[in-house]
Amino acid sequence: MNLRIPGPTPCPPEVLQALSGPMINHRGPEFASLLKTCTERLKPAFGTKGDILILTSSGTGALEAAVVNTLSPGDEVLGVTIGYFGDRFAEIAERYGAKVTRLVVEHGQAAEPEEIRRLLREHSNIRAVTVTHNETSTGVANDIEAIAKVVHETDALLLVDSISSLSSIPVEMDGWGLDVVLSGSQKGWMVPPGLAFVAMSDRAWKANAEANMPRYYFDLLSAKKYAERGQTPATPAISLFYGLDVAFGVIEREGWPQVYARHRDIGEYTRQGMRDLGLELFADPKHASNTVTTVRLPEGVVEAELLKTLRERYGIVVAGGQGPMTGKLLRVGHLGLVHKSDITALLDALRIELKGVASIQPSVAAH
Amino acid sequence: MNLRIPGPTPCPPEVLQALSGPMINHRGPEFASLLKTCTERLKPAFGTKGDILILTSSGTGALEAAVVNTLSPGDEVLGVTIGYFGDRFAEIAERYGAKVTRLVVEHGQAAEPEEIRRLLREHSNIRAVTVTHNETSTGVANDIEAIAKVVHETDALLLVDSISSLSSIPVEMDGWGLDVVLSGSQKGWMVPPGLAFVAMSDRAWKANAEANMPRYYFDLLSAKKYAERGQTPATPAISLFYGLDVAFGVIEREGWPQVYARHRDIGEYTRQGMRDLGLELFADPKHASNTVTTVRLPEGVVEAELLKTLRERYGIVVAGGQGPMTGKLLRVGHLGLVHKSDITALLDALRIELKGVASIQPSVAAH
Repeated sequence: MNLRIPGPTPCPPEVLQALSGPMINHRGPEFASLLKTCTERLKPAFGTKGDILILTSSGTGALEAAVVNTLSPGDEVLGVTIGYFGDRFAEIAERYGAKVTRLVVEHGQAAEPEEIRRLLREHSNIRAVTVTHNETSTGVANDIEAIAKVVHETDALLLVDSISSLSSIPVEMDGWGLDVVLSGSQKGWMVPPGLAFVAMSDRAWKANAEANMPRYYFDLLSAKKYAERGQTPATPAISLFYGLDVAFGVIEREGWPQVYARHRDIGEYTRQGMRDLGLELFADPKHASNTVTTVRLPEGVVEAELLKTLRERYGIVVAGGQGPMTGKLLRVGHLGLVHKSDITALLDALRIELKGVASIQPSVAAH
Repeated sequence: MNLRIPGPTPCPPEVLQALSGPMINHRGPEFASLLKTCTERLKPAFGTKGDILILTSSGTGALEAAVVNTLSPGDEVLGVTIGYFGDRFAEIAERYGAKVTRLVVEHGQAAEPEEIRRLLREHSNIRAVTVTHNETSTGVANDIEAIAKVVHETDALLLVDSISSLSSIPVEMDGWGLDVVLSGSQKGWMVPPGLAFVAMSDRAWKANAEANMPRYYFDLLSAKKYAERGQTPATPAISLFYGLDVAFGVIEREGWPQVYARHRDIGEYTRQGMRDLGLELFADPKHASNTVTTVRLPEGVVEAELLKTLRERYGIVVAGGQGPMTGKLLRVGHLGLVHKSDITALLDALRIELKGVASIQPSVAAH
């Protein structure tokens, strides 16, 4: 299968093989060493020298951890949402009692830093801003560096969901002054789902000392204390640590700059290929994501049928629209283990299957 | 390695191998089928025809799910604790705002149903009782059937941590009237850690409708709604589902009655072997666990040194004491993939290493 959804992503064979390692004592010396090296090797992608905690959960667990470890019920939060996952981040804050003001951006567009500045001035008690770096539901990447600048004109914390950007798109947590940054193993890391990563700045730890949203499983201070002695508070997903450890080797052999460049190239290649087919890109081209490309389904094409045909006839799995965009989009993942040939295969299949659809006009280049 | 801790447990080779399967779309038909069959095949061990939700987390996440999905802040809870994990369950309830009355039982002993009855009468507003079925920190199994009888003299819910008993020791959720029962993949299920299972009774769902402790990642109603269409709310640990699916085959080929009988036999064999070595069993023999055996360290034996020797010289990994019992106990896991020969190897090693320790008196049978 050519798995071209925005996660889980295909894993290199050596990563999959590593998952089969035998169980070990999670409170023994081997796991301590594994936890330490994995934590250290996450740091270049986060662009931080600070603490990163590895959780046994989906990425959504890390979103929850970011919220409940830095905030208290009643705190004001600005939830910047450019799609499904921005909504989720804001909703988690609300569930735990934050008073959330939402900046809802039209789907397909990125958040305007100027709008965030305006809202932060209007609501002067905002304690934290939640934002998605790379929104897989719309294929848009926010400019986090620019957003960080306006957020830091105030005392608000900046909590960044980098689930689908980290390890594929450069992030400079320390350089940009991000307070909480989080990701999940099943994205560019090329590891199956089940581990999540949360980095905390010094300011985030200071907030943590006063934050009193209830937490136990996702208590990051507890995770930090355990990590200092090479352990996790609860039993970790050991097999996925084995996979992560091997995946770092794959990434480091290619080199971080090369990994980022490959994602940039493939993003451009995918968008150009879609345009050449006459398909309409959904994301604002100025902010198009380099890990997921979204195109509008042409008039007369039924999403479920096209997905089924691609899967059954070509062995290609792509995603459809999510939330309000269900039935209206194709979403193509190109993060982690991906090469141009994987995208070419999809473009070729689309060219055949969409032939004769009246509403699309393939450009000359596609012939 | 002969991994003899009370979890993670060794996994059969076919389970480990299954973990290496390629990634699939977690919102596609293959995962839907996997989720459905895994959920159904959990039911015999739980002894329920009701709902079971599979979470991507450690067992501790399932403890949190049990609490936050059935209770509201301010609710009164009776936390029955016979050791470290009973404390944890009660602490989670407290963190989320429950008013917890603890029944603290001397370590090594089981909870007396009569004591629970007395406390439930004394505190007539108790909304839920939390209890550990099998306490791995002390090697004691509570009599859940008897406890359920006294709890059901009131309207309180009974939340049962069966993390280290389910699949090894019989549990009859429906028959005994348990309201929430939970377990984790890394115990008798013979699957690596990272999946947790939570079963909810109809009464638990009724309580859920009014329960307002905050929850998002562990929201079981959301999990139930997604499960109905073959999905999970967040991206699941797909590899571990592959392992679970294969582990069911291993268990079902042996047969559930045979699996339970094997655990009973090995429990007895381990205790007898320890007694024969002159070691003092820590758990009350009337309530000794059939998945973990605890023995007091003889005078003059240093826990860390003995664990190191067993690991380095014999390839046997056992656990030491936990919490207040640190340094005072050996804890031996015999759940999941375990045969008498694994225990014999440990007994032989202990016989050699403890020779000459003045405080122990091996019985004649041991010579």
